[in-house]
This record gives sequence, C-alpha cells and structure tokens, in this order.
Amino acid sequence: MKKTFLLITVLVLSVLSFSQIKYVFFFIGDGMALPQINSAELYLTKINNKDTKLQMSKFEAQGMTTTYSQDSFITDSAAAGTALATGYKTLSGVINMNADKTIKYETIAERAKKNGMKVGIISSVSLDHATPAAFYAHQSSRSNYYEIAMELVESDFDFFGGGGIKYPKGKSKNEKDFYEYAEENGYKILNTEKEFDNFEDKNQKVIIINEDLSSGSAMKYDIDRQDEFSLSDITKKAINILDNEKGFFLMVEGGKIDWAGHANDAVTNIYDTLAFDESVKKAYEFYEEHPNETLIIVTGDHETGGMTIGFAGTAYSTYFDRINNQKVSFENFDQVLSKYKKQNASFEDIKHLINENFGLFFPEDKEKAKDKGMILNDYEVKKIKQAYDMSWKDKVPNTEYTYLLYGGYEPLTITLTHILNEKSGISWTTYSHTGVPVATFAQGYNSEMFNGYYDNTDIAKKLFQIIG
Amino acid sequence: MKKTFLLITVLVLSVLSFSQIKYVFFFIGDGMALPQINSAELYLTKINNKDTKLQMSKFEAQGMTTTYSQDSFITDSAAAGTALATGYKTLSGVINMNADKTIKYETIAERAKKNGMKVGIISSVSLDHATPAAFYAHQSSRSNYYEIAMELVESDFDFFGGGGIKYPKGKSKNEKDFYEYAEENGYKILNTEKEFDNFEDKNQKVIIINEDLSSGSAMKYDIDRQDEFSLSDITKKAINILDNEKGFFLMVEGGKIDWAGHANDAVTNIYDTLAFDESVKKAYEFYEEHPNETLIIVTGDHETGGMTIGFAGTAYSTYFDRINNQKVSFENFDQVLSKYKKQNASFEDIKHLINENFGLFFPEDKEKAKDKGMILNDYEVKKIKQAYDMSWKDKVPNTEYTYLLYGGYEPLTITLTHILNEKSGISWTTYSHTGVPVATFAQGYNSEMFNGYYDNTDIAKKLFQIIG
Repeated sequence: MKKTFLLITVLVLSVLSFSQIKYVFFFIGDGMALPQINSAELYLTKINNKDTKLQMSKFEAQGMTTTYSQDSFITDSAAAGTALATGYKTLSGVINMNADKTIKYETIAERAKKNGMKVGIISSVSLDHATPAAFYAHQSSRSNYYEIAMELVESDFDFFGGGGIKYPKGKSKNEKDFYEYAEENGYKILNTEKEFDNFEDKNQKVIIINEDLSSGSAMKYDIDRQDEFSLSDITKKAINILDNEKGFFLMVEGGKIDWAGHANDAVTNIYDTLAFDESVKKAYEFYEEHPNETLIIVTGDHETGGMTIGFAGTAYSTYFDRINNQKVSFENFDQVLSKYKKQNASFEDIKHLINENFGLFFPEDKEKAKDKGMILNDYEVKKIKQAYDMSWKDKVPNTEYTYLLYGGYEPLTITLTHILNEKSGISWTTYSHTGVPVATFAQGYNSEMFNGYYDNTDIAKKLFQIIG
Repeated sequence: MKKTFLLITVLVLSVLSFSQIKYVFFFIGDGMALPQINSAELYLTKINNKDTKLQMSKFEAQGMTTTYSQDSFITDSAAAGTALATGYKTLSGVINMNADKTIKYETIAERAKKNGMKVGIISSVSLDHATPAAFYAHQSSRSNYYEIAMELVESDFDFFGGGGIKYPKGKSKNEKDFYEYAEENGYKILNTEKEFDNFEDKNQKVIIINEDLSSGSAMKYDIDRQDEFSLSDITKKAINILDNEKGFFLMVEGGKIDWAGHANDAVTNIYDTLAFDESVKKAYEFYEEHPNETLIIVTGDHETGGMTIGFAGTAYSTYFDRINNQKVSFENFDQVLSKYKKQNASFEDIKHLINENFGLFFPEDKEKAKDKGMILNDYEVKKIKQAYDMSWKDKVPNTEYTYLLYGGYEPLTITLTHILNEKSGISWTTYSHTGVPVATFAQGYNSEMFNGYYDNTDIAKKLFQIIG
C-alpha cells in the first residue's frame, strides 16, 4: 500500500517538475534560532494578550538545521553563509572557498542570475558583511571588506539594499572608490528617503544605502528607527523592482538580530526579529498572488548569545511585558552614557537615566514603581554600581572576570540589559554564537522538501535542485 | 497541477487508512529539547571522531512543538504530560483534569486499552511521577502520589516498568499498601534482576520495580548504573511481553534527563539522553520488522536548565571530550561528599576528590594535567573554596544570591559541574524549566503528520486520530 503511494507520489512530482519555479525568497535571520523566534512570539502574545505567531512559523513546512562549520561545532556567519549559499562546508571566517582557499564555490544567487532570473541582496547590516557577501563574493577571509565590495559590483546583480559599505576606499582609504566603481558599472546609488521612495526604474541596477555610520555602516536597530525606511520597506521595493517575466531570487538578511544577541540585549533582539518577520510578510503577500511559482525559505545561520526563555531568579515565571520598559538599544544608550562620562557625572547624576531608559527603580524610589518586580534589589544595585565604576574608568581592565561580566561591552549598559532581561525571564550564556540547531520554514513551491532534520548545506543543495 | 497532486494524495491516504495501525510507541524525554539532543550528538561526534546522530534524529519526520501550559509560558511536567496524553491544556501541576478540576480527560493510553490494544508505561523515574501518571491518572495535583499509585493499579494496563512508588503506604504510611493492592488486582511485582530476566509470561500483568531509594525511588542515573537493567532493557522486555495480535501502545519516559538538567549536570544529562535513545533504538528495531503497522513518536515535554552549547568563557570553542572527566552523577558525588562532611574534612583533604571525580587540577598540580584547559584558574579556585565553605555549613543560607549560585543543590557539587561544563563549552541559565519549543520526531505509519510547527496538544490530537 505504502509502495503504491510512493510510486504515485514520484509520478505526480515528476509531472509537477514541468511547472516552473519563478520566484525564490531566501530569508536569513542572523543569530536567529528557536529562542529568538519564540521570545518574539511570547512577547507579542503577552502584549496582545492572545496567542500570536510570527509569519514565518505559520509556514506550511518546517525543519531543523544543523549549523556547524568545517572546523567548529559553533560556526561563524561566513562559514554558515557559505553553507547556505553554496552547499559546502568551509572553515569559520571563509567566504565561498574551500578550506585550502584553492577553489571558489558557485552560489545559488549566481546560479539564479545565470539562469536568467534577476537577483537582489538585502541586509540590515553593511552590504559587504559575511552573510550578504556569501551570495556574491569568494574570499579567503570575511575581513577582506574592500575586496568583497569590489565583488559586489562585479556580481552584476540587479538590486542591493540595506546598510552601507564599511571601507568604500579600502582600509588604507586610498583605493579606488567603491561608489565610483559601482556607478561606472551601471549601478545607481540611492542614499536618501526621497530617492528611495521615488525610485521605480525596473531596468536600472541599484544599490540602496541606509547606513548608520555610528553602527558599523549597518542600518539602525529597529527599536531606534525613526523616519528611515525599514527592512520590510526595502524588501517591498525589491519585489517591485525585480519582478519580471523571468522571475527573481531575493535574499534578505536580518543581520542585527545577531548583533543584539552578541550584546545580550533582548528587547533590541526581539524588535529586530519582528522587523525581519515584517519583511517575510511582504514576501508572503507576493506568494499569495503567485502561489504556484513562488518559494519562500526562512532560516537562521546560527544562534547568538545562548538566549534562554527562563532564568534561575524567575524560575517558572516570565514577565515579557517588562522588556518594554527599555526605550532604546544598548548602542543608543551607550551614546547617551558617553555624554555623561565626558562630564564625569556622579552615580547619583545618572540614576535617572536608568529609570528613564530601563524602567528600573532604585530602592529609595520604590513607591513610584507600579510593577514591584521592577524595583532593584541590593544585589542588583551593587552590580550596577560596580559596572558604573568600570564604565567610568578610562579603560576597562581586560581580565577573564570582566569579560564574563561584560563581554567587552559598555559595563553599565550590559549590566542593565542583563538585569532587565532577567527580571523579564530571559537569560544569556555567551557573547558569541552557540551550536544549537536552527529552525527552517518554507512556503510554496516544493516547500515539503524542507520538512525534517538536515544540515545547512542541504538547504543550498535543495535550492540548486529546485532552480536547476 | 498542485491541486491534482493534492487530490491524488488525499485519495491515496484514504486508501491507506484501511491499513490498520497496530503498534504505537510514544517516547518522552523529560526536559529534553534541542540543546539536550544536540549536545548528546556533539558528545558522540567528538568521542567517535565522526559525525554521529541519535536514532531519534534520523527519523523520517520531524516537527517543533510548543509546550506552554494554561497558566505559564514555562510549563511543568504535569501540564505538559496532560497535553501530550489527552490533547488538553491545563494548569501547571494538574494531571488530566481541567483548570477547575471538574472534568477528567481520557488519555491516549486509556483509548488504546479501550480499543483492545495492550498498554505499557515505562519511566526511569518513579511510576507515580507526573509524566507516567499523565497516561493513567486524573488528579488535581501531581503531588497526590498515593492516589496516583492507586489509579495505576485501577488502570488495568498490562505493563509498568522503571522506578518504584514514592509512598506505597501513603504519606502517612498507614494506608493500604500499594503492592498488596496491585497483587490483589492481578499484577505480578518484579523486583530483582533475576526475576526480570526470567519473566516471559505474556498473559500476566506486571509491574517491574528498579528503584534507587536514595534517588526518590527513581532508577539510577545511567552514568551510575552497574548491573541493574537499563531503560532499553525494560523497553525490550515490554515489547516482548506486549506484542500480540491486537497490537499495543507503549509510553517510555526518559525522566532523569530532566533531573540532571535541574542540577545543571551536563554529563549525567547526556548519558541519560543516550540511554533514552537506546530505548528508541529497541522500538526502531521492532519497527523494521513491522514497518506498515508501527508508529514511533519521540518528543520532549519541555526544556530543563536553559542548557546552551556555548559559554562566554569558551566563546566559539567547545571541548565536549572534557565532560568525560566526570566519573559519577552529581547525586553520587553528593553521597561521596557527605562522608567527608561528617568527618569535617578540611579543604586540603577533599581536593583529591575534585581531581578524581571531575578531572580538574588545582594550580599547584598543573604539571600533572595533560589537557591544560583542565587547570583551574584563580577565579575558579575562589568559587570552589567559597562553595566548600557553604557546603560545610550546617545549613546553606537561603538567599537570592545563594539560590542563583547553587539552586538549592549541594554548593560544592554544583560549582564543580558548572566549572567542568563551562570548560567543555556548555552553560546553563536556570534550575527550572524553560519555554523554548521542543523537537518531535516520528517514524512509520502516518509519520508525515508530525512534520511542521505545532503545539504539544496537537500530538495527542493526531494520535487520537490515528488510533481512532
């Protein structure tokens, strides 16, 4: 009976294969695994007071994906990006080359371009960062930012958008300018919201730059975003520009989920996961118009931060509404602090900042707290004072002890995000990535291929099979 | 085209549904989510020096499962067991009743029995514990151990095996004896290895007791097990005894994975996950002989401990071979320590225990260490001495600070497992459960129903649908 079923399935699939894939979306949440997805969902569920799922986790197919690199159980984004874009394992740090750095691998985006599809690459971090680079560059080191940027231009891909370029004139600042090189090669560069809004030329290769120079040329964290266009705005724009009768391949990276994870900042992490999911929604809306020709894949490249939904101090309870007390990203708060540091402000002088930006109350102000769980206990006050002393030093001593506490971040800021996260029932174990498998979701054409438990290289292999 | 495929699939599935399900295995790893599964796999991969997967993660279907209870994002085992066994959410702490405690829910095991299948319940913890109880009992509180044990007898199920019964004569010790009651109701009680080995009577209801009275009437941790029969031995025995022409339903719980997670003891956790997977292998061997009539489900009820594969101090590196330095479970080491405590042994007197049982070297012995990573740094030595002082007190002070450090466990032991785990690249955030979704695996009859992202109640609903 089962054999008959299999035979018929194979037959039907063979017939189906005449139906052509036309639109492929590949969404990568950098540093996004189950804890990030689930904490965003629990946050929404708490805020909405009803069970709320992300768009991605409502997809019809779902798998789990191992992420290890060739030389480490815990991968970096370069090796993970290589695996996802080419189907090959390589060493952490390497972009689309083998471990010996003698072979360059073809990427799924290059294959799509070769097959006549238009290609778009979007990232909320700089466009020369490891994950976007893994779709167009081939470098022995992810740190070869300038060489990567040159390869971006040479890719001839149709659409780039997101953050900027870290070293447009190279690290030495006297190389050929990236933007000149791009324009010489037929790219239009858009820098302002107005240019972005007005751009509608489907026959024009384009690079859309929305960078925050104080944040490594990445886009702003979504929690700090004001009028700037969002990741989903760029995704929507890309869909409009790329749509053509030969179809397109579009990769969208939520790159700052990872950065917020490194910094152990849960609310910033959750906001960027939600912004990423908003982009997924744009693809889903497109899918609904073209259900038989569209495939959407959403995955993560690895987990970042060792985030857990639970903390020893809160045991079985969670208080996800409490993270809402945080008003800005850790990075933005660092900038606030730096002004006070310059004035050598006393601890008393900065206490109000802690209340205003994190909603935490010192014991002497406990009457003002509506949620008594937001009152700092003596142990927390001690940790905050200790961190203030560290932050106000000219240089934080570089010891194992200070690393475990602060991970190289501004001591006062990370102490505050740790405390607020823990009061919410969220905890972290590392400032690096972890080795837990990630979740993969798929919707549309042949999505059932993405059910099951498989490796990150298998995602690329399946995609190569699908686009041919 | 896709519609044709769906039509044919529905047709084939309808025809297939005439084929009868006969054997259902339901494996529940208590406190087992992706971090536990993956760390066991990475441990084997490291030890074997080649990519090694568990039996469960090689299954043909795989899903992700949310675990929240009716009143908490972080469930307990009673509410999770109720969801898995009946398809209903309830409050944490409640076994198979609604939140008002007015309705008793039918369990999938009871339905199987009603349908004429034989039923077996196996657990590595006591047989009246929340997870096994969720298949036969209906109680307003999981703490009603005696009432649960009485319901065990009244279930009339065919096979029970694993740990013992916590309060055979009730908490007052003057109730009707559980074992007498069981024998009056036709059960044979087996207590020794010899009785176990020789038992082969398929027409005899049986309760197999393999309890360690010093461990809450549970079976021993697999790392401490010597000649006692294992979880997979009991599973194999159950398969032999239950096999009959009307089929069977067998639930197997790996209950001490959870306990080792609560205690943040990675090697004990991994050994118990491996022992659980050995039991899954026994079911898989049976499936290979009856592939068209057998369904195996493996899932977890929740994650325990906030385990992560990564730690701030080891960053992107892992050293999973180092956990092998631990020779006994935390519980067994507590017993070793207690002798030294009675003698009020000095810190110098117990240092050798730390080396012998955890492979850690104090700085003065650093020449002896083959793996220099196993040498304790000053910060770690300080933590160990502080924990020794705490352990040697008559009573550990019950403060938030000591709870965060020791979680109510023996301070010296948990400090040592924390340090060894961290040196291996494993870390923990809580002594309770966490809210991350768990993985579900399925093999055999209608296994494809278990692909996707769904709730723990859906597993029971699918199973009710399958067994009818």
